[in-house]
Amino acid sequence: MSRAGRVPARKETTGCRKRESVFTVNAYAATSATEPLAPTTIERRDLGPDDVAIDIKFSGICHSDIHTARSEWGPTTYPIVVGHEIAGVVREVGSAVTKFAVGDRVGVGCMVDSCRECDNCRKGLEQYCLKGNIGTYGGVGRDGEPTQGGYAQAIVVTEDFVLRIPDGIELDAAAPLLCAGITTYSPLRHWNAGPGRRVAVIGLGGLGHMAVKLAHAMGAEVTVLSQSLKKREDGLRLGADHYHATSDEATFTDLAGSFDLIVNTVSAAIDLDAYLGLLAVDGTLVNVGAPEDPLSVRAFSLIPARRSFAGSMIGGIAETQEMLDFCAEHGLGAEIEVIPAEKINEAYERVLASDVRYRFVIDASTF
Amino acid sequence: MSRAGRVPARKETTGCRKRESVFTVNAYAATSATEPLAPTTIERRDLGPDDVAIDIKFSGICHSDIHTARSEWGPTTYPIVVGHEIAGVVREVGSAVTKFAVGDRVGVGCMVDSCRECDNCRKGLEQYCLKGNIGTYGGVGRDGEPTQGGYAQAIVVTEDFVLRIPDGIELDAAAPLLCAGITTYSPLRHWNAGPGRRVAVIGLGGLGHMAVKLAHAMGAEVTVLSQSLKKREDGLRLGADHYHATSDEATFTDLAGSFDLIVNTVSAAIDLDAYLGLLAVDGTLVNVGAPEDPLSVRAFSLIPARRSFAGSMIGGIAETQEMLDFCAEHGLGAEIEVIPAEKINEAYERVLASDVRYRFVIDASTF
Repeated sequence: MSRAGRVPARKETTGCRKRESVFTVNAYAATSATEPLAPTTIERRDLGPDDVAIDIKFSGICHSDIHTARSEWGPTTYPIVVGHEIAGVVREVGSAVTKFAVGDRVGVGCMVDSCRECDNCRKGLEQYCLKGNIGTYGGVGRDGEPTQGGYAQAIVVTEDFVLRIPDGIELDAAAPLLCAGITTYSPLRHWNAGPGRRVAVIGLGGLGHMAVKLAHAMGAEVTVLSQSLKKREDGLRLGADHYHATSDEATFTDLAGSFDLIVNTVSAAIDLDAYLGLLAVDGTLVNVGAPEDPLSVRAFSLIPARRSFAGSMIGGIAETQEMLDFCAEHGLGAEIEVIPAEKINEAYERVLASDVRYRFVIDASTF
Repeated sequence: MSRAGRVPARKETTGCRKRESVFTVNAYAATSATEPLAPTTIERRDLGPDDVAIDIKFSGICHSDIHTARSEWGPTTYPIVVGHEIAGVVREVGSAVTKFAVGDRVGVGCMVDSCRECDNCRKGLEQYCLKGNIGTYGGVGRDGEPTQGGYAQAIVVTEDFVLRIPDGIELDAAAPLLCAGITTYSPLRHWNAGPGRRVAVIGLGGLGHMAVKLAHAMGAEVTVLSQSLKKREDGLRLGADHYHATSDEATFTDLAGSFDLIVNTVSAAIDLDAYLGLLAVDGTLVNVGAPEDPLSVRAFSLIPARRSFAGSMIGGIAETQEMLDFCAEHGLGAEIEVIPAEKINEAYERVLASDVRYRFVIDASTF
């Protein structure tokens, strides 16, 4: 397969100094909303004093990658290399790097930087940076160049946005933790999933299966609410205590007022009022998936039990590290199917058909 | 004005024993969704061992009264005596009553009983009773009869649902606290209004003006978001630090991300996404008004700052007492216009036209 093109990584801002450490790496890029992803090469930036260069070993496929590659979340600037579930090994560190050394097992998630100065960044909530965090792909880096993500052989990231992957987790199973893991861990922690708390997870996909594993490890009583009972055995094996089909109307009467927290991992529109009715007093339904269209909700679905409908986005850097440590401690990783890069486009179709248990991970040696 | 009819207060379940303590009182009742309220008489139930008979002195007019009188919240059973902002004086107590004595200043709010056994009742959240609390009007009492509310000379209520009105508050200004007061106090407390917290109140009406007074007394920084600047002076006098017109689009850009809590007291549909954009990270917009139609909300209005959209309904009995004590301590009462009973229908029209600052209270001596 031929390399489809070269993605410019940055412009030279001065001609006086030859850039020593720029390196060219193989990657897979989307070149338009409709073309399949294809091989290319990109250049990674100079290694700054606080930068870490990472040899990517595995890169997870997140539904967001597909939305972005296809311009479904607003217009994408092409070519773009997506991927924000990155697990690898440190290849080189900048002169001022103190946290990482060559050979360390590391990960990169959805952000590669933030303003670090706003109220939210100071609280460790870089994901809610008031100036906007810098996305691992599709953002604009400090150098003014578009950021390019993890479907590549290597990446350069400032050390404060690099995570340590504990020895207890294989790198391939760790990759999806950097998005699917933290996206579900953070709301579970924020809304106090734990012993004595009844947690439901809507959808048993990439995010959902991690929500089940994590909520179970936190000690909560876990229920899966899935379209059908097709994945029931899996759900119970992953840690669910109960499993119900939402296609069965009885689910909504039988389980009324049953949950303290519902994590909705489904991006498709759902009948929000029906699901809110499943919450106990002071319960919260939190969306981590983001349907494109507005949702309809009746105030009367919330008022008579002081319920909340909330949203949550990934997690802060410190919390992401906490999540990785928690996963290592509890022996948790994602359930994955490892594929070579040439299968990415096929994998996209299978993601859209919910035909994956539960996350595709690209073997970066095949880029 | 002639008495329009007699509302049966209860059926005799036995003919053997003459009921000693039933008493007939003047009241105002709605007899259909379209007829004006008119004078009538009703009978109050036998004084049970735990009952308190209250001579009503003042009865506030709540928008819910109008919705119910006009069958706007589902079909109402007529005739009905509405009113759930009741302030009065104890006239007689049952043999087992321990908390109240004749002559005590007391109030009754939106509930006159609950199951007292469910998880929520045990937590003091009788308003969220899992079997449904018994509304002061339009409910079904323990005796199987429809409950009749506060537009009357007297009422009989089990002592556990009677509140003590501290000496520091005039009875007329106290009446609206039993609904408008607790409806705003409870969410302000639940979502931690206090020093260092930025609270916005949507709408400066019966509920809104109490929200401003209470949030200010709790030490929060208070902003009123009102359609226009017409009531600005009032708002600042009541305790608001800032006052903005929502008809001015700049309000939504200038105040983006500014509030920790927004209390929406407006029952009309609002552009929820625009208001959610005013919340800071972890902020909550809580509806205490209940629009009839479903609201539209985008998940993206919540996700990028972990915002919540919530609902809240009055407060528990212990919390209502806490609110009354808080009001007495801070010298707070409702801003009221006292009217005779014969002005009720006119007052209803003025409520609908937002032509009241800020609550009508009926002088019960005129029933």
